[in-house]
Amino acid sequence: MVYLTRKEHFCSSHRLFNPKFTEEENLALYGKCAYANGHGHNYEIEVTVAGDPAPETGMIMDLKKLANIIDAEILEKVDHRHLNFDVEFLRGVIPTAENLATIFWGILAPRITAGKLYCVRVYETPNNFAEYRG
Amino acid sequence: MVYLTRKEHFCSSHRLFNPKFTEEENLALYGKCAYANGHGHNYEIEVTVAGDPAPETGMIMDLKKLANIIDAEILEKVDHRHLNFDVEFLRGVIPTAENLATIFWGILAPRITAGKLYCVRVYETPNNFAEYRG
Amino acid sequence: MVYLTRKEHFCSSHRLFNPKFTEEENLALYGKCAYANGHGHNYEIEVTVAGDPAPETGMIMDLKKLANIIDAEILEKVDHRHLNFDVEFLRGVIPTAENLATIFWGILAPRITAGKLYCVRVYETPNNFAEYRG
Amino acid sequence: MVYLTRKEHFCSSHRLFNPKFTEEENLALYGKCAYANGHGHNYEIEVTVAGDPAPETGMIMDLKKLANIIDAEILEKVDHRHLNFDVEFLRGVIPTAENLATIFWGILAPRITAGKLYCVRVYETPNNFAEYRG
Amino acid sequence: MVYLTRKEHFCSSHRLFNPKFTEEENLALYGKCAYANGHGHNYEIEVTVAGDPAPETGMIMDLKKLANIIDAEILEKVDHRHLNFDVEFLRGVIPTAENLATIFWGILAPRITAGKLYCVRVYETPNNFAEYRG
Amino acid sequence: MVYLTRKEHFCSSHRLFNPKFTEEENLALYGKCAYANGHGHNYEIEVTVAGDPAPETGMIMDLKKLANIIDAEILEKVDHRHLNFDVEFLRGVIPTAENLATIFWGILAPRITAGKLYCVRVYETPNNFAEYRG
Repeated sequence: MVYLTRKEHFCSSHRLFNPKFTEEENLALYGKCAYANGHGHNYEIEVTVAGDPAPETGMIMDLKKLANIIDAEILEKVDHRHLNFDVEFLRGVIPTAENLATIFWGILAPRITAGKLYCVRVYETPNNFAEYRG
Repeated sequence: MVYLTRKEHFCSSHRLFNPKFTEEENLALYGKCAYANGHGHNYEIEVTVAGDPAPETGMIMDLKKLANIIDAEILEKVDHRHLNFDVEFLRGVIPTAENLATIFWGILAPRITAGKLYCVRVYETPNNFAEYRG
Repeated sequence: MVYLTRKEHFCSSHRLFNPKFTEEENLALYGKCAYANGHGHNYEIEVTVAGDPAPETGMIMDLKKLANIIDAEILEKVDHRHLNFDVEFLRGVIPTAENLATIFWGILAPRITAGKLYCVRVYETPNNFAEYRG
Repeated sequence: MVYLTRKEHFCSSHRLFNPKFTEEENLALYGKCAYANGHGHNYEIEVTVAGDPAPETGMIMDLKKLANIIDAEILEKVDHRHLNFDVEFLRGVIPTAENLATIFWGILAPRITAGKLYCVRVYETPNNFAEYRG
Repeated sequence: MVYLTRKEHFCSSHRLFNPKFTEEENLALYGKCAYANGHGHNYEIEVTVAGDPAPETGMIMDLKKLANIIDAEILEKVDHRHLNFDVEFLRGVIPTAENLATIFWGILAPRITAGKLYCVRVYETPNNFAEYRG
Repeated sequence: MVYLTRKEHFCSSHRLFNPKFTEEENLALYGKCAYANGHGHNYEIEVTVAGDPAPETGMIMDLKKLANIIDAEILEKVDHRHLNFDVEFLRGVIPTAENLATIFWGILAPRITAGKLYCVRVYETPNNFAEYRG
């Protein structure tokens, strides 16, 4: 089993906020991540596919194809967007790194047809990141 | 002359948009940076002070004091904020990296009392940055 | 299961040295890491917690709380300190990266009450690091 | 169980190309990675050894010894070389990151005598990497 | 005066070799950089433009346009290519970082029509780079 | 004029402390950098040489030779050493980044015989660095 990873980037804004809670409860829970007008990040996403390299190509899957899938399914929807308002597949989701990793996994897993999806890691900053392995 | 630099970080959202222009003109000018709900970055700011180290301390200025000035004058105002709406000193300013570097300079220069401010560099991403030298 | 990681930093000095061995044996074993007056590193520590995000918060645990635990239990004790002399919980421990990761784990594990501690990684340099997973 | 990692670097050129296929088939399969005169990378290799630190040394194995093994067995053969032409142990191998990680593993595993080899990761670029775990 | 920088990447192979010298002389001069089949790098190029931001846009020049110029004039010609054989504007040039920075400058300078080109920096590796300022 | 830079690394311990001051005064001046047993860093040093590339080599000076000079004159003396006690050329010097950059310059400048030394930059951490330009 070999693990192949592709890293991509996107720049988005978000706000951690649960509409079931009051403003005060949200501020107590999320601190400055709950400020009303939101903030943003240079997100990084690492997508890892596990499989056996095909003997005649030496590849689990074409990295360019993997990059294209991430781009079409994720980056096109989230890059330069507000994650709370602009993204169909994030409606009703609190856009924490944990939730983003889990939802990105659900979107990507059925599209990986050579090898299988092993892990999706989402960096909010170099110091904060979440990973989902299915 | 020695140059001493302190790097700090903040996470903000912004939108490139000039209210004098139409939506279409803004999109033509700024591309996806003009999307209505904004996006965000992990900004980095490098502040460089030039001077002669004092013989009895070996320092141009105390780096902790420099960090405190950057924190009180800049980070406290912009971190986890929307640069178009939440920041007093950015009212009416289009928050490009060029404008941020210039305005941060104007705020910091009079507070540097040991040595003098040499340069302020603002990274929007690792690939895009602007620098102002007064 | 989602994995959430927080990275922190500290600057310490240390010396690899076993008092049971002679100076010559220590130099043969540890090379320049055994030099008498020690050396130091910009250490990085990555702490990973595994769990299921709570539906109403989207979080395994509050990253700020995780950062505070790391700060109070580890950084406050080791930052700007000599690991061989200044740290209560390292008395009698040879401060290799392997030992630091294992001991930090033992300190942090009982403090993680939402999710559970999955891994502690300690970087001595970008090229040398150790990881303990319990 | 503790995991100890050493990272090393080498600069090589390569070409993705299977001589069983035509030029056109190679270009369709590998894109610009199949261009006739090759291209190159600043490769990074992370070698992870798993084991229990010896109580009297605090080490799984001497990192300097691990670095020396990587240097003698891998770097001396591949650094500043063309991976398709110059490396005995890569003859007939399509030098994808997947194949490099697998072959480096095969070379290193029998040389690790304290602890055992856990993982070999090969970065072609910061955005593309492959990992083999035996 | 504000300085705006865009960083881009390309992966190429090259060989340091002066055909006026013998093989032995080239090896004595360039060491392993002169090995016959070449090696390669993940090059990085930083292009800095100096100017005054236009008041109505906040920009010296559109970073997207700067990126497009670098892409069309440089990356399209050198990415995934062998710098000694494949690049028209490098014919007869020994592809050191110094020469690349100087030649890239000559190509880019006349294309920068808002502000003016201030500096071109070329990284061969994170530890080796050259810069030309005209 | 072309600027060529070589980056190197060393790991050292140090303490900011002026023996003319009391313990209390040193703590007030340097904060935790004055703790009695010292701390340490993964220092980085960037040495920049300015000159015209020789037409027949394409180089200002051989980067390998520059690396060797830095290694012999600086790294051999400071790596894995305590900067307050172990280094002849730092006797009586308070080892701030400002002082290190200035003293390294004084050592390196007369050894650079092709081109001339333009700048020495010393990173204590990725967030703190000093630069001397003669």
